[in-house]
Amino acid sequence: MATSPTVFAPQTQKALEDPLAHLPCSSIVEFKKGQMVYNQDQPSSNIYLIIEGKIKVCRMADDGHQVVVDIYQPDEFFGESALLNLPHRCEQATALENTKIMAWTTAEIEDIIVKRPRLAVALLQILVQRTIDFTHRIESFSVDNIARRLARSLIRFSERLGTTEDDGSVRMTPFTHELLSQYVGTSREIVTHYMNQFRRQGYLKYSRKGIVLYRDAFKDWLRQNA
Amino acid sequence: MATSPTVFAPQTQKALEDPLAHLPCSSIVEFKKGQMVYNQDQPSSNIYLIIEGKIKVCRMADDGHQVVVDIYQPDEFFGESALLNLPHRCEQATALENTKIMAWTTAEIEDIIVKRPRLAVALLQILVQRTIDFTHRIESFSVDNIARRLARSLIRFSERLGTTEDDGSVRMTPFTHELLSQYVGTSREIVTHYMNQFRRQGYLKYSRKGIVLYRDAFKDWLRQNA
Repeated sequence: MATSPTVFAPQTQKALEDPLAHLPCSSIVEFKKGQMVYNQDQPSSNIYLIIEGKIKVCRMADDGHQVVVDIYQPDEFFGESALLNLPHRCEQATALENTKIMAWTTAEIEDIIVKRPRLAVALLQILVQRTIDFTHRIESFSVDNIARRLARSLIRFSERLGTTEDDGSVRMTPFTHELLSQYVGTSREIVTHYMNQFRRQGYLKYSRKGIVLYRDAFKDWLRQNA
Repeated sequence: MATSPTVFAPQTQKALEDPLAHLPCSSIVEFKKGQMVYNQDQPSSNIYLIIEGKIKVCRMADDGHQVVVDIYQPDEFFGESALLNLPHRCEQATALENTKIMAWTTAEIEDIIVKRPRLAVALLQILVQRTIDFTHRIESFSVDNIARRLARSLIRFSERLGTTEDDGSVRMTPFTHELLSQYVGTSREIVTHYMNQFRRQGYLKYSRKGIVLYRDAFKDWLRQNA
């Protein structure tokens, strides 16, 4: 989600429902960095809420390629495809760092929805936001070259997952070039090429500690190169 | 949706909820072929159900390009982004043929959900299916060349919108090459190039009357060219 569901948007926009206000606590399970929550061989019938840490959700393409669906953070849900109870699923969720999550079975979620329908409205809003995010990404695949796709992806991650520093730059976790390539839909080498170029041009810095993005300048670059 | 919500899937899969079982009738509005239901300048606060005809939902990219989000048909919903009540929306819905639709405001939908929470489960399942469809498409953008993207799109449209003939081929409406290019994310010229190639290779026929797809052979081609 681009917007946290608990945030009140400006002006005319009605406040979104907060799903956390309607969900009973569940027990907390911990996953170590790199540990798998579910995959195609061990599909899940749960919907998960992140309490601490980050989760990477991927699709496995026919040719074995991983495609990163998204990175989720505290107060965000994942695993919603369990609601369809499909026999065959190509999705995989992995902890990107040490992560704590709560889980509810889809049957539990459906029971809670019947008692507290506002939870359903909250979940619907989250899913609508996700479909909008995915269509943004499809738009970028349709009209942007790889440099612009990478730039948009970095800006989006910085808006979702970054923290703003005093000088206006935004600091993010050190996403690997491989992960970025699996999100942008290109090779690791090409991501490294453009990350170097963006660094030389002063739009970002990166090291093993993290990525620092000069977001406003980077957004200007996107506009000027349209 | 790849699966109609009223269909019972085989074996272990639980039947999906049918949203139509939970929605009161609304008045029917007609749109002529080419007529707009909503766009970025006249955003909608309704959720729509198609009774007859077809609706094309597009996003307008910054550079004026149209990106086709999807084509919707009878018993399918569109306009769900109204649930977020965003101040700025880039979505546009147009009737692809003469079309009849029912509409409910999001406030009405939320009221009905509170009284009939199974409607919410049904809508959640539809939205989850849409997010899965979008991630399939993102996967195709990530790993496929344009010929394969076009082939997958034609196969998907034939599965969603086509009717099977006696000889096993599938007949679809005559989608223009421009519409296909706005879905696949390329130029009209490139779509025409590959449509000609696929026709010469015997995977499809097309005319102003429609597209006929030899789907099984086309799926074999996709597998062999992986």
